[in-house]
Amino acid sequence: MPRLLQEERLNEGVAMTAGQKNDNQGETVLLDGAALELDCGVELAPIELAYRTYGALNDDKSNAILICHALTGDQHPAGDNPLTGKPGWWTQVVGPGGIIDTDKYFVICSNVLGGCGGSTGPQSANPKGDGPYGLNFPVITVADMVRAQNLLIDHLGIESLFCVLGGSMGGMQVLQWAAAHGERVFSAVPIATSARHSSQNIAFHEVGRQAILADPDWHGGDYYAAEAHPRKGLAVARMAAHVTYLSEAALQRKFGRNLQDREAVTYGFDADFQIESYLRHQGMTFVERFDANSYLYITRAMDYFDIAAENGGNLAAAFKDTRTRFCVMSFTSDWLFPTAESINLVRALNAAGADVSFVEIESDKGHDAFLLDEPEMHTTLSGFLTAAAQARGLD
Amino acid sequence: MPRLLQEERLNEGVAMTAGQKNDNQGETVLLDGAALELDCGVELAPIELAYRTYGALNDDKSNAILICHALTGDQHPAGDNPLTGKPGWWTQVVGPGGIIDTDKYFVICSNVLGGCGGSTGPQSANPKGDGPYGLNFPVITVADMVRAQNLLIDHLGIESLFCVLGGSMGGMQVLQWAAAHGERVFSAVPIATSARHSSQNIAFHEVGRQAILADPDWHGGDYYAAEAHPRKGLAVARMAAHVTYLSEAALQRKFGRNLQDREAVTYGFDADFQIESYLRHQGMTFVERFDANSYLYITRAMDYFDIAAENGGNLAAAFKDTRTRFCVMSFTSDWLFPTAESINLVRALNAAGADVSFVEIESDKGHDAFLLDEPEMHTTLSGFLTAAAQARGLD
Repeated sequence: MPRLLQEERLNEGVAMTAGQKNDNQGETVLLDGAALELDCGVELAPIELAYRTYGALNDDKSNAILICHALTGDQHPAGDNPLTGKPGWWTQVVGPGGIIDTDKYFVICSNVLGGCGGSTGPQSANPKGDGPYGLNFPVITVADMVRAQNLLIDHLGIESLFCVLGGSMGGMQVLQWAAAHGERVFSAVPIATSARHSSQNIAFHEVGRQAILADPDWHGGDYYAAEAHPRKGLAVARMAAHVTYLSEAALQRKFGRNLQDREAVTYGFDADFQIESYLRHQGMTFVERFDANSYLYITRAMDYFDIAAENGGNLAAAFKDTRTRFCVMSFTSDWLFPTAESINLVRALNAAGADVSFVEIESDKGHDAFLLDEPEMHTTLSGFLTAAAQARGLD
Repeated sequence: MPRLLQEERLNEGVAMTAGQKNDNQGETVLLDGAALELDCGVELAPIELAYRTYGALNDDKSNAILICHALTGDQHPAGDNPLTGKPGWWTQVVGPGGIIDTDKYFVICSNVLGGCGGSTGPQSANPKGDGPYGLNFPVITVADMVRAQNLLIDHLGIESLFCVLGGSMGGMQVLQWAAAHGERVFSAVPIATSARHSSQNIAFHEVGRQAILADPDWHGGDYYAAEAHPRKGLAVARMAAHVTYLSEAALQRKFGRNLQDREAVTYGFDADFQIESYLRHQGMTFVERFDANSYLYITRAMDYFDIAAENGGNLAAAFKDTRTRFCVMSFTSDWLFPTAESINLVRALNAAGADVSFVEIESDKGHDAFLLDEPEMHTTLSGFLTAAAQARGLD
């Protein structure tokens, strides 16, 4: 696998001097000295990764935490998102004095390869063409995302990450890190995730993709030239996905059959119910911040994810001789990545002789629980990090 | 509520002489002497109902069973469907010598109001216009469907139905029959259903509707004039719904991550996985047999369904003084209409002092289990019908 770039160009404000506060508001590194050989066989170059850091790297560069984001996430887990002005997606967990304490740890988060938050993806300029890649962008995998992150960690001069963590597709990346680059991963926290995308999950992704492909504004993926965006199709995809992120109980509690600003049903197809209004809003706001082709590519990467398959169907073999400490978490009401998936993973880790703890957290919030205020998750994560920090000599 | 028609016109071959075999291959009755006052306030006329019968009505007209179909079902539960040439949708249960034995019972099934199997719906001619209703068709409810069926039962000269049964939306109609016309319902078998459509179920329906509305071939509901059909949107709607009809376990067992006619993934957006190919096929075949506007209207009727709401939120009150015998069934892996919904219903029936039995059937087949080979469902239904027939003096 290629390593880094000779002629790397760093944006202003990124200087990985140990002991120096290195918060940035989002930077992009051009990994232009190297091509990345992707799982599909294509050599991709150039590669840019948009990333953000929080806190300061300590003297022996042993306090770095890599956070991996989920399907529609970005490189802004903490602080404000400079694009939206809204708080990052994991401020419950990450920040000064937080569970992932940016006064103590050096936190890194990068937009995934294939994403639309500044990293190279289908909307990037195709060096072999006149405009964006569109569907000429190669299909990437979670392993490819992690390969790109691995280059970024090289670039930052960090030998070993104290912890790699994330939920959902972020958890897939965590597992891929541990399986493919375990020597660089002191501890790993895969949350609400699985070692392989299930048939049901592929099914829901396929529904979303077909909704996008059905939209005439998709233009075969070349909507950039047409100055169009398959807004309706992408909104439907988001709506379908969003339902899967919530539990039936949470939907009932939050919305039930409550009507939206009306006393009675209207006998029509307006959003009579709050849940309809909520979903439409989710769809409409999503298309403002996400690229339809990125949605196609990232969902495909998740579908292809199956760590065991790369080891002849033996999941334990993927983690053979691992020295990484694992903390696996699942949520009782998460039906998209149910606890059974985590148990399957934990069994394999045990079979591989790994140091692994597992907590199933009681929650009615469904898959999205990992993004929400879940005290038991926070307590578990906090305890795990404290113990791992002691083992790493960080205290 | 209006009763029947003076000038009713019966199709050939329908003659409800007691004791005579009255199998038909699908007939349509024009209920043109009466207008139906719908829940939305509109008086709908004319009303045609397409229906099919099996077996013979006995001398005292006490052996009639009404089967109510689900969202995308039709009036052909048994025998062959004359349109497709394929077996009806419930041949596992209904037929000569079957669990619902058409040698013993007179079985009736009608296409719901709003449907596209021959009953009046959005694709019917609008008497106030030049062409089909389209979106000028009034929004109907499950109660309206049952009102129309009630007229059909009048028309057939049947005072009291021995049994009304059905699954999913069919089960909603069963409950509506028992609540609104209980005096005509000796026994009732609601299967895999609920007394109200849940927030999650409304959410999935809304996703499907938005997929249809997003399709430019929908033409604001007036695609009939444009000689178009929102095929892509309707296919996406069907795909999304279809995933909800199956359990995660069934999907894993049937498809898992198996590839479709290939040795390895293609790193593209073709249907690499069997589940993708299967879903696309489900979508494509569905649009051949179903009208997109009917899909909008019938899903809306289900969303509006909430028997308790009509009784001040008191579900038991809806069944006050009922003399109907109930057999409620649910399936362990049905996450669309989970057992909790049936338990809620059973509690209310118990509170109303009803004669009710309840069986939760162990199955990994999800919501669709009621349509499939489920021996425990068949045994339960058979036993219930036998006991009810004895109580009715049918043996």
